[in-house]
Amino acid sequence: MNEDEKFMHVALAEAQKAYEKDEVPIGAIIVSNNKIIARAHNQVELLNDSTAHAEILALTTAFQFLGSKYLPEATLYVTIEPCLMCSGALYWSKIGEIVFGAKDDKNSYRRCTAENSPFHPKTSVRGGILSDECAALIKEFFKNKR
Amino acid sequence: MNEDEKFMHVALAEAQKAYEKDEVPIGAIIVSNNKIIARAHNQVELLNDSTAHAEILALTTAFQFLGSKYLPEATLYVTIEPCLMCSGALYWSKIGEIVFGAKDDKNSYRRCTAENSPFHPKTSVRGGILSDECAALIKEFFKNKR
Repeated sequence: MNEDEKFMHVALAEAQKAYEKDEVPIGAIIVSNNKIIARAHNQVELLNDSTAHAEILALTTAFQFLGSKYLPEATLYVTIEPCLMCSGALYWSKIGEIVFGAKDDKNSYRRCTAENSPFHPKTSVRGGILSDECAALIKEFFKNKR
Repeated sequence: MNEDEKFMHVALAEAQKAYEKDEVPIGAIIVSNNKIIARAHNQVELLNDSTAHAEILALTTAFQFLGSKYLPEATLYVTIEPCLMCSGALYWSKIGEIVFGAKDDKNSYRRCTAENSPFHPKTSVRGGILSDECAALIKEFFKNKR
């Protein structure tokens, strides 16, 4: 298992926690200097806040932990491709890297950005890490909802 | 003074509070049933959080106040056209109306959305309310920064 997979497994464990609480199962962690400094999962239902996505909660924790409003040296691992709101938040954070699991053709930032990247020019973005596992959890969740 | 201007003056008063605290002077309020249920201004510096925009803070307050994660009957007044993150957050909130003051050609959601609206299809958006006053406060702020 490589580094990316190792960290994505931790994000997946967060997503699993969300699943068990009947939240849309998306998890995110932030890594700095090879250390996990933030872990979060979707808490929209618990917080009664439609903006309480895993990425936003992880960012807030990381800002507080590092005492910095920018995260140029950090990497976000998130199980599902970020939505427009989270992409905009990641832009402001100037985070160094974004690594996502499965693509999301319906709700990701791509729903309205066309060719223009919403991310900071210095942020590198890559996806497809443990994509099948990340997607399977979401599929299972929505299958049970129908 | 019409209703829009009355409420935008309250949002401007929030922006002025931000200005006095050396925060980027943007203010937002949320109105429901003709009553102000949330007031906020940019707190990026205070909270050391680059995502602590006025709109996000106002949304969180409104969700808590109404005990609802959606705001279809509410109106957001914000002094400056929302950024991509805030537009994404407003999308998730399903807010009824968005009324902004001045346009922002650099940082608004338009920086990468082209023709595709980031907002919820049921959300109505209009701008230009007290545009000069809203823009003047920001201009003054950045003039002093240079």
